Amino acid sequence: MSENSVKTVKINTELTNVKLDNKMGNNKNNSSSEENKRKVTSGSGDSHIKVKSAIPRKRQELLKWYGWGYNDSYFKIDTRDNKGVVTFTGDRYLIGGKTLPHFASWVKEKFDVDLLEQPRVPDVPPSFPDTRLPDHVYEELGRISGTSRDGMDRYIRAHGQTLREMAYTRTNGFKRIPDAVVWPKTHDEVVEIVNLAGKHHFVIIPFGGGTSVSCAVLCPENEERPIVVLDTSDMNSILWLDKDTLLARVQAGIVGQDLEREMRSRGCTVGHEPDSYEFSTLGGWVATRASGMKKNTYGNIEDIVVQTKVVTARGVIERSCRVPRLSCGPDWEHVILGSEGCLGVVTEVTLKIRPLPPIVRYGSLVFPDFDSGFHFVREVARHRLQPASIRLIDNEQFLFGHALKAEASWASNLVDGLKKMYLTKLKGFDLKKLCAVTLLIEGTLEEVTDREKKLNTIAAKYGGIPGGAKNGEIGYTLTFVIAYLRDVAIDFNIVGESFETSVSWERAPLLCRNTVRRIRDECARRRLTHYLVSHRLTQTYDAGCCIYFYFAMKCIDANAVKIYEEIEEAARDEIVACGGSISHHHGVGKHRKKWYKGTVSEPGRMLLLSAKRTLDPDNIFALGNMDFDEYKVQSKL
Amino acid sequence: MSENSVKTVKINTELTNVKLDNKMGNNKNNSSSEENKRKVTSGSGDSHIKVKSAIPRKRQELLKWYGWGYNDSYFKIDTRDNKGVVTFTGDRYLIGGKTLPHFASWVKEKFDVDLLEQPRVPDVPPSFPDTRLPDHVYEELGRISGTSRDGMDRYIRAHGQTLREMAYTRTNGFKRIPDAVVWPKTHDEVVEIVNLAGKHHFVIIPFGGGTSVSCAVLCPENEERPIVVLDTSDMNSILWLDKDTLLARVQAGIVGQDLEREMRSRGCTVGHEPDSYEFSTLGGWVATRASGMKKNTYGNIEDIVVQTKVVTARGVIERSCRVPRLSCGPDWEHVILGSEGCLGVVTEVTLKIRPLPPIVRYGSLVFPDFDSGFHFVREVARHRLQPASIRLIDNEQFLFGHALKAEASWASNLVDGLKKMYLTKLKGFDLKKLCAVTLLIEGTLEEVTDREKKLNTIAAKYGGIPGGAKNGEIGYTLTFVIAYLRDVAIDFNIVGESFETSVSWERAPLLCRNTVRRIRDECARRRLTHYLVSHRLTQTYDAGCCIYFYFAMKCIDANAVKIYEEIEEAARDEIVACGGSISHHHGVGKHRKKWYKGTVSEPGRMLLLSAKRTLDPDNIFALGNMDFDEYKVQSKL
Repeated sequence: MSENSVKTVKINTELTNVKLDNKMGNNKNNSSSEENKRKVTSGSGDSHIKVKSAIPRKRQELLKWYGWGYNDSYFKIDTRDNKGVVTFTGDRYLIGGKTLPHFASWVKEKFDVDLLEQPRVPDVPPSFPDTRLPDHVYEELGRISGTSRDGMDRYIRAHGQTLREMAYTRTNGFKRIPDAVVWPKTHDEVVEIVNLAGKHHFVIIPFGGGTSVSCAVLCPENEERPIVVLDTSDMNSILWLDKDTLLARVQAGIVGQDLEREMRSRGCTVGHEPDSYEFSTLGGWVATRASGMKKNTYGNIEDIVVQTKVVTARGVIERSCRVPRLSCGPDWEHVILGSEGCLGVVTEVTLKIRPLPPIVRYGSLVFPDFDSGFHFVREVARHRLQPASIRLIDNEQFLFGHALKAEASWASNLVDGLKKMYLTKLKGFDLKKLCAVTLLIEGTLEEVTDREKKLNTIAAKYGGIPGGAKNGEIGYTLTFVIAYLRDVAIDFNIVGESFETSVSWERAPLLCRNTVRRIRDECARRRLTHYLVSHRLTQTYDAGCCIYFYFAMKCIDANAVKIYEEIEEAARDEIVACGGSISHHHGVGKHRKKWYKGTVSEPGRMLLLSAKRTLDPDNIFALGNMDFDEYKVQSKL
Repeated sequence: MSENSVKTVKINTELTNVKLDNKMGNNKNNSSSEENKRKVTSGSGDSHIKVKSAIPRKRQELLKWYGWGYNDSYFKIDTRDNKGVVTFTGDRYLIGGKTLPHFASWVKEKFDVDLLEQPRVPDVPPSFPDTRLPDHVYEELGRISGTSRDGMDRYIRAHGQTLREMAYTRTNGFKRIPDAVVWPKTHDEVVEIVNLAGKHHFVIIPFGGGTSVSCAVLCPENEERPIVVLDTSDMNSILWLDKDTLLARVQAGIVGQDLEREMRSRGCTVGHEPDSYEFSTLGGWVATRASGMKKNTYGNIEDIVVQTKVVTARGVIERSCRVPRLSCGPDWEHVILGSEGCLGVVTEVTLKIRPLPPIVRYGSLVFPDFDSGFHFVREVARHRLQPASIRLIDNEQFLFGHALKAEASWASNLVDGLKKMYLTKLKGFDLKKLCAVTLLIEGTLEEVTDREKKLNTIAAKYGGIPGGAKNGEIGYTLTFVIAYLRDVAIDFNIVGESFETSVSWERAPLLCRNTVRRIRDECARRRLTHYLVSHRLTQTYDAGCCIYFYFAMKCIDANAVKIYEEIEEAARDEIVACGGSISHHHGVGKHRKKWYKGTVSEPGRMLLLSAKRTLDPDNIFALGNMDFDEYKVQSKL
């Protein structure tokens, strides 16, 4: 963050006057409850912003049906003359259309794999299981909303994005896929669909962006009733937006990138940016307790949400008053948050919005080793000086950044650049220990400059030196590309995935050390010699932090996915033993069920069970996430 | 906040090295869960700070049994020569020992009451209802913890501090009082007591500081089983305190002033300061979802609490990991928060602590009218520039400050002083419309100065002028004295109380206007001619604010309390109709039950009922707060 490394982006902050809802009114006979329930469902006037989503209803036309992200964005291998040169296709990302000259050699070194073949696009399954949804029920559904029983429409909504699900997708390995898809457009249509499910005894799986990494939307194998995926993507309007009160009412199916695009075009932002936000939805964020990279400024999802409206099998839950905080017994919003689709469908959410910051500045800092970087971020949190985002990456990721370096001129160097820039300063820095902190600072010019100065002062105490704004920006944007790696890796017998935890400050270093060691031990025990294990610290709080682990291994065994999962389970056991949580922001799903009861204690699990029995006695939302072992409802068909 | 009105308090921030718990350890075989559960119950060494409470177990020896606060602190009327000169006794508060020359004339003007008699200390009830707790059960209880069946010990724990409860206290009007009191010292003793309640079918009412203003601890009239008050005041140790991680583990019975005193003596603060904090307890804060005056810096109770440990009839609820945030399904802490004693007993809490701020500076601003002040605080919140505390008081309270002005030299003037200080500037200010904002700013000298400058700039936009640090300080400290007023008033047929709400920004002005008008209308309808209605804005958020109403009326009717409650109910109906909540931080109790279901919706109420059935099927915690109408458990004795 020296003078010459400052990148300042100036955003147009002139606020256009968008006031879409006549919420005030002097009619005191209107009870607040009526007022809040008054829906703005007509498409007329300014009171309803119909959003054209970047993602079409036929998702598979734009997005990979067999992997992560856009069809046009992937790692392409030039196999001519056995060169193995890799390019990232498309123009959606910073490295789009660029050749990555260091990538293949990094893969060779790390995994002993030669990238000499083009990754294979899997074959579309030749056939799909017959739908179990009776025609007359399907027709009734169709009278409420748009529907489909097309095989591929069902197939691509049978899963999220865990390694296991990806393996199923590629091998047509699902034991069960949904029997139909329905696309309600409004809260009222959802009410009708849920009523119909009660009447005809079918199961509903709410589906947002399909980015779950907890097996949350995976169909329960033994479910005998028909399964209908309730795809929320048509519920993506902004019902009203008030720049005066800084609130917006939004349908829960809106996709992150659509929400931000619409907000920014009006001079506002929600500021919730999970790594999945190109595809994930508001409703999904609520259901999983999501966290975004800029949570220090905008808060986690529970801080952003003012009010939710949820359709359950026993009626609609919605607090009557839209207030910032209240004391009215237990907070049922916090039971909806994290309900993982098992209690109902989130249909509408009132959100806090913020004016766009005048300045958004990226920055980076380089530290001699992880411990130094850790002490830095810990002290920043202690003084509550966190900028919008502050992340610490370990040496593995630092070096991996080099592997993703493009040849094109735009790319400032991660390693080479640093060497040049700070050649003298780098004396004493060991490139095999170096770590980096990436920063994202928002505010007025004065605020941003002041914050940067304070951060640099603290960094210097721990031997940190500025690493340039460009490297900071690359660090953030590469996050979106990393998700594409797994699809290229899997064809070369490399399986990998990330998993995250939260932990108190004093246990974090031990947790990192022990977890990495445990993974290494587990690999050694299985004679796995080529693997990557890496971690980064992505969120900081008063009382602790979030740590992400990345683990990928080369494994030619036919059971590679199972072996991976065994090691991941051992790593999670270690995390839990070190005082870490089972998830900072991805939830439990089916994938982390093993640790649910231990985390919430037996009375906590009983509360879950009783909430389920109360709101969904017939188990319409039979996703089976978290821990419902005693809760078996037989098919009534 | 001009130069000459700055009051700077410098706090010793040298941090003594208090590290009381060997929490880290490298023993990876210790599961986190075991680790967290490892209790530091011995009094030995540094690992357990035994706190000597300012409040003795025989509360009545220090505190009024018939009213608010300390026995030695009250409004004393000099009846010699019919002078009616009022003094506030004792030396605990800023006006302690001072004569208040303007007080009597203010009372005369406002309520047409002559303060010519000394307020009467009510007679101690001549007898108390016999205890219903059988001897053998009482003896069993006594083998676990300290106990009492003394009438007065039971009587003073039969109530909180609502007007109705105060009237009952003075007239021996309780239909039911507890049958015994038990003082557990540890979590384990609470477990034993709750088990005993299950075995012998008695009811437990958890009791902290007795400051509830929702009738939460009032015994249900028709309860046939014996009622045991579980007084948490002996559970007031700091189990450990770690200035490195800024966390402390504290027993839930600790009183606010004790907690803060102990923290400050170690260079720390929790920073949670509700108006009741001299007497209220940590467990009570959790059970009611409390808010403190400095929540902008330290957060509301849900932001301060990291982890709770709760004894229910079905076992102990405690999350296994002490992490800052997690995604593990619904958050059951948020069901404990606000449980109002009905689901179990909070025994221990892990809290965030903060280093003491180097500078604490009071300030005040005067605005020409309430609307100007409102626009100021709204804009401050919009820019997220709130200092630790920012409050806006209306003209009634501004003038009332004058009535509480002491003659002694320490007192800077509220009204007179302003007139002198800003004589010229005040031109155009109408003393009958003036409003004031009080400020409490904490931080480094640089931060405090910078914040003050920014606030002054915004204030100037709305015609606000600095009113002096002393007036700011008086504003805050008078809060603690205001609670003493009701006891002097009631003897002169003046009944009064405060009630608060939260509301979104855009509805706040309407809510204030309509609520004040509604109270005036209700008074007019009842031919009540002398009353006070006033309001202030005490907390601000991104999405709205908290508003306190004060309403006191002269009423010679024997049913004055009932009439008061009718008007208060009408006012609350109006608040709710204007989009306000039923409480910002005092909870539901029995007093606001009418609006519970309407607030949380029917499925929300069903969730409450099911949580109750799950954790307390025999209704041991039969306080009957919130809305448990279907939940009747008959006595099994």
